[in-house]
Amino acid sequence: MRSEQSVTIWYDDLVPGRVFDLGTTVVDRDEMRDFARRYDPQWYHLDEPRAAASEFGGLIASGWLTAALFMRLYAEAVLATADAHTSPGVEELRWLAAVYAGDVLRGRLEVLDRAPSTARPGKGTVTLLGELHRDSVPVLRCRFRGWFGMRDAQ
Amino acid sequence: MRSEQSVTIWYDDLVPGRVFDLGTTVVDRDEMRDFARRYDPQWYHLDEPRAAASEFGGLIASGWLTAALFMRLYAEAVLATADAHTSPGVEELRWLAAVYAGDVLRGRLEVLDRAPSTARPGKGTVTLLGELHRDSVPVLRCRFRGWFGMRDAQ
Repeated sequence: MRSEQSVTIWYDDLVPGRVFDLGTTVVDRDEMRDFARRYDPQWYHLDEPRAAASEFGGLIASGWLTAALFMRLYAEAVLATADAHTSPGVEELRWLAAVYAGDVLRGRLEVLDRAPSTARPGKGTVTLLGELHRDSVPVLRCRFRGWFGMRDAQ
Repeated sequence: MRSEQSVTIWYDDLVPGRVFDLGTTVVDRDEMRDFARRYDPQWYHLDEPRAAASEFGGLIASGWLTAALFMRLYAEAVLATADAHTSPGVEELRWLAAVYAGDVLRGRLEVLDRAPSTARPGKGTVTLLGELHRDSVPVLRCRFRGWFGMRDAQ
């Protein structure tokens, strides 16, 4: 979490076309199973022999875990030093390839568009494209919006 | 998880307009914090005094936890007895209101549309509208697609 002093990213800095490397995360086998047991108890997330014999060739991660792993990279690499507010939602979320335990996923964020908020003076809405890649294979794509504070409004 | 014997919901049964009551879940304070620490470490999810003094009036749940709670209700009420395959993704995900510890959320699922899959013989793509409500207040809306097996293809 940021303190007020550490903010370096404002609405003003989120210029369309700007790209952030969000770093990497490794998909943990136990976390995959814990998450699936709690939130997404389906056979291809939990039943190892059946998953191994299926088209997947092994257990795959819940798509909601993959989304949460993206969120963590985004929060650590960008939001931790941003004047960021909540998000109204996601325009598109795609699970492009199955994700497995041990996969190393690299996050990427691109600023697509932005506009000052009419309802929230001093803030702007930024449209962002988030992605996770395993090597050159995209596994998650997420187009979403976030509210950010304007530097001059502080 | 279903066994092959317990399937009662096929593509054929997911007629546009059909509505499922997914039951309820209670948002747990510890789970809210654990989830936020792991995946969404932002002040309005973790910093209680600051959240209490903010427009939120207290800690709010990560939107990704809310989505995961919807997934659990959907998995238990529908997928557990469905011939369900994975999902290509989400068309729209909206966080419509802040969610707090102790909130009782009721899930609702509506079949919006469906079409046989051209790429996957014996399966069809179903477009679904998922919602979570706290009393009469919608807090999450999610329009997504899922692949389901056809009864006659088995």
